[in-house]
Amino acid sequence: MFTLYYAPHTCSLASHIALEDAGASYELKRIDFGKTEQQSQAYLQVNPKGRVPAVVTPRGILTETPAMLAYIAQSFPQARLAPLDDPFAFAQLQAFNSFLCSTLHVAHAHRMRGHRWADDPASFADMQRKVPKSVGACYEMIETHMLRGPWVLGDAYTIADPYLFTLAQWLEDDGVDPARIPRVIEHRARMAERPNVRKALAEELAD
Amino acid sequence: MFTLYYAPHTCSLASHIALEDAGASYELKRIDFGKTEQQSQAYLQVNPKGRVPAVVTPRGILTETPAMLAYIAQSFPQARLAPLDDPFAFAQLQAFNSFLCSTLHVAHAHRMRGHRWADDPASFADMQRKVPKSVGACYEMIETHMLRGPWVLGDAYTIADPYLFTLAQWLEDDGVDPARIPRVIEHRARMAERPNVRKALAEELAD
Repeated sequence: MFTLYYAPHTCSLASHIALEDAGASYELKRIDFGKTEQQSQAYLQVNPKGRVPAVVTPRGILTETPAMLAYIAQSFPQARLAPLDDPFAFAQLQAFNSFLCSTLHVAHAHRMRGHRWADDPASFADMQRKVPKSVGACYEMIETHMLRGPWVLGDAYTIADPYLFTLAQWLEDDGVDPARIPRVIEHRARMAERPNVRKALAEELAD
Repeated sequence: MFTLYYAPHTCSLASHIALEDAGASYELKRIDFGKTEQQSQAYLQVNPKGRVPAVVTPRGILTETPAMLAYIAQSFPQARLAPLDDPFAFAQLQAFNSFLCSTLHVAHAHRMRGHRWADDPASFADMQRKVPKSVGACYEMIETHMLRGPWVLGDAYTIADPYLFTLAQWLEDDGVDPARIPRVIEHRARMAERPNVRKALAEELAD
């Protein structure tokens, strides 16, 4: 049994979908950002970093989406969510997910989390103005050089797919023009049709 | 044979040390940031993202430090640079490296790369003022919750160690008080004594 700590509209959706794809037995625990529950003493015992996602596994707690996704894939090898027998293909998958967490997600975070890196409201406004360009550049890199299609790594669906889908939920709000990244948009639509994705989204948005 | 594209004083040092630790056969290709060679057409053929590091392997090119480090560990299992037979321990290692790339390195980058996320020089100055606090908070998280000692994961040296060492080169310039993170500083000193680390540093700083 896994326990996934999540919040709606965050990157925890990627691990939620992956747990569905894996056929894992899991329960959800919602962290209420409106009450800054991610900073509560109880949650800091789970994840001292005060962020979602975190997953409690029979072996212990894990954080950081790329690590969690890879662990889900390795724990349920029959689901074939990563090229576990091919270290180079696995590394390519890891490189994709690493770009999402360290570059795309970070660029996006400057729209609403500027306080992590600056203090002046004028800086926050400046950061927000740049998000369409910085996030857009990440998506154009994915569109042109990284997304093979139909899935991220080509013919095989992997843990990179729910991760890209999750971040791609936010691209219109980030001011990115969907018309410039048609393959990313097609990928998002393809993902949205999957029953596991619909189930995960419905669970997160239910209450 | 591997070919590592690197630049001094960047996170490419982590992969350089790991290649030494692995006993890999490799050559170095220096990218001259002073001439913005990372944006040259020739280098963009290697890495369209225009950053270091990148590594050319017999299977193809890889980027993104966490993925490169894990691939080096998997390609040279006899060097025992990662807990390859224990998916949970491997995930903990990946989580550590993911935190370094997506949180610590990103906080640091706001000191000199503010143009990635803003346009106004006043924003850059604001970002720079916050670096001691934002980077310092990352190191305090590592000090208190993540670094087991003597190595990152405990008794076994892994690819997390050269990565932490690499970023820790910059902490004084980031305005972080070393006295507040004695275990991180001890780790850095322990790393600096290793012959492979000395060799890699000497090679990068030679010319």
